[in-house]
Amino acid sequence: MEAKAEEFSNEYAADISSIKEAQERISPYVYKTPVLCSETLDSISGRNLYFKCECFQKGGAFKFRGACNAVFSLTDDEAANGVVTHSSGNHAAALSLAAKIRGIPAHIVVPKNAPKCKVENVVRYGGQVIWSEATLQSREEVARKVLEDTGAVLIHPYNDGRIISGQGTISLELLEQIPEIDTIIVPISGGGLISGIALAAKSLNPAIRIFAAEPKGADDAARSKEEGAIVILPETNTIADGLRASLGTLTWPVVRDLVDGVIVVEDKEIIEATRLCYETLKVAVEPSGAIGLAAVLSESFRNNPVWKDCKNVGIVLSGGNLDLDMLWESLKSTV
Amino acid sequence: MEAKAEEFSNEYAADISSIKEAQERISPYVYKTPVLCSETLDSISGRNLYFKCECFQKGGAFKFRGACNAVFSLTDDEAANGVVTHSSGNHAAALSLAAKIRGIPAHIVVPKNAPKCKVENVVRYGGQVIWSEATLQSREEVARKVLEDTGAVLIHPYNDGRIISGQGTISLELLEQIPEIDTIIVPISGGGLISGIALAAKSLNPAIRIFAAEPKGADDAARSKEEGAIVILPETNTIADGLRASLGTLTWPVVRDLVDGVIVVEDKEIIEATRLCYETLKVAVEPSGAIGLAAVLSESFRNNPVWKDCKNVGIVLSGGNLDLDMLWESLKSTV
Repeated sequence: MEAKAEEFSNEYAADISSIKEAQERISPYVYKTPVLCSETLDSISGRNLYFKCECFQKGGAFKFRGACNAVFSLTDDEAANGVVTHSSGNHAAALSLAAKIRGIPAHIVVPKNAPKCKVENVVRYGGQVIWSEATLQSREEVARKVLEDTGAVLIHPYNDGRIISGQGTISLELLEQIPEIDTIIVPISGGGLISGIALAAKSLNPAIRIFAAEPKGADDAARSKEEGAIVILPETNTIADGLRASLGTLTWPVVRDLVDGVIVVEDKEIIEATRLCYETLKVAVEPSGAIGLAAVLSESFRNNPVWKDCKNVGIVLSGGNLDLDMLWESLKSTV
Repeated sequence: MEAKAEEFSNEYAADISSIKEAQERISPYVYKTPVLCSETLDSISGRNLYFKCECFQKGGAFKFRGACNAVFSLTDDEAANGVVTHSSGNHAAALSLAAKIRGIPAHIVVPKNAPKCKVENVVRYGGQVIWSEATLQSREEVARKVLEDTGAVLIHPYNDGRIISGQGTISLELLEQIPEIDTIIVPISGGGLISGIALAAKSLNPAIRIFAAEPKGADDAARSKEEGAIVILPETNTIADGLRASLGTLTWPVVRDLVDGVIVVEDKEIIEATRLCYETLKVAVEPSGAIGLAAVLSESFRNNPVWKDCKNVGIVLSGGNLDLDMLWESLKSTV
């Protein structure tokens, strides 16, 4: 396994060196988020669970790590005209905040169906909102136009080595905080978060197992692993609005090679896990952020004999930005 | 001020020595809770806020510290018949858990109007529930009967030096985590929490200011400070169900001498602070637990020129046990 850790250092868009550099670069700006435990949830799951609370990160999600690394990686010349992205939410807010700290403009293309609180975050952090239609095509077109008009640098939400390296700093922190971790469960959408986490964690300890947690209504990562190639779904349908993106050309190879399994869960399991986060862990997560707990509690994970020896499980609670009103409707619908 | 710190060491039911002993005694069992920050809330309040998250404590509230110290202070003979208390919730759950860890029974007298989730916690932690009417008189009578029947030891929720010492360990942690703290705002009910916090903090740094946060509908501490004697209200009316108790004979002297002011807030301010905790800090608190944030944001605190130089403010988020359904009704009522 050591050999493999060496082998992959040049194959991917990020590696342990770029992740350690990212940590040094962003440490003045990011919070070192706490790890919480709950004996009640340990008892329900039959394992020791360690919740890495990225919902407490600046901007309310892990996204600030990658955005901050990307923005502060730019030379002064590159940074002069600002940055641009199209995003459904947390990356947009994070990029706005990172740009504000560096003192450069952030142009944010936001689809019309983005959750209200996420758009408010963009505005609060000084990002300039440019609306697009909800389709990926419209978002990309509008973004291209903004790029031409402003000369800003495009920072993709996940298909970017600087972003992947920034997200990977979570592993460096988590394994320092809880060295005995043998498994990490990570929400998967475009794959930036899990790529960074897998690259860092498996470099530090090749025996660690990395699982993706994915909603049934947007299970492109599970299908991609099955097919051996990126699968793009014609449509998605899940309450986990942060988990609807498809894998990118830079994240897919990492997911293909280093992710040990994809745990697919139903929306009702996500909602139940969200409620447990509120009522038991006392953490206000968004449904996308709670999916790791849903995964560790799912029948498919519990019943797989291969995973019985996952004893000390890190669970990344990836974000906490949501409209309480919308959450309430979801919670009520499962009672 | 140094002289004063020395002076009071023998006057009260707890002191820095008993609090340090408590820390040593309970450290194998309690969580060292994290301190969270939010630049958004700093900006709204105009100060640096440091949220000490006791809602993440075992049992979901600070109460476990005191309960644990009391239970583990007992000799084996004293402990043999278990412990008993009457409590509206968090202390009851905490005592059940501490007793369970020590392997002794906990008899819990619970008023019929206690929040459902708090009673569920008692049951989850193995406490034996004995119902009483909602009045204090009925609770005390039933508790007395249980004491006679079982020979158990009564552990009062706050009027007990062991309890006060346990709660004081919060100051030891907080001042180690954030040494620059110059002010601490603490929810007040029976006064056990603020007594422990004030005794420890003022012993370590006599210049630290300690404020109590209290709901207008249960403002007995503010009135007691004005009158110079314990005031007991004929009735209370507040959403903050954990803050309805009156000061005790052991907590009143500390509140009288060491608490620099009582900040009284309306229920609508408490509800707004609770919402901010969820939406901005991403912490699921109960209204009683969010009152410190309501206090620091209140007009009366902001506009007092004497308190302008409270720059680095510790806020104790004291607990997170609530029925989400009830919270929702409260949040909706303020929209």
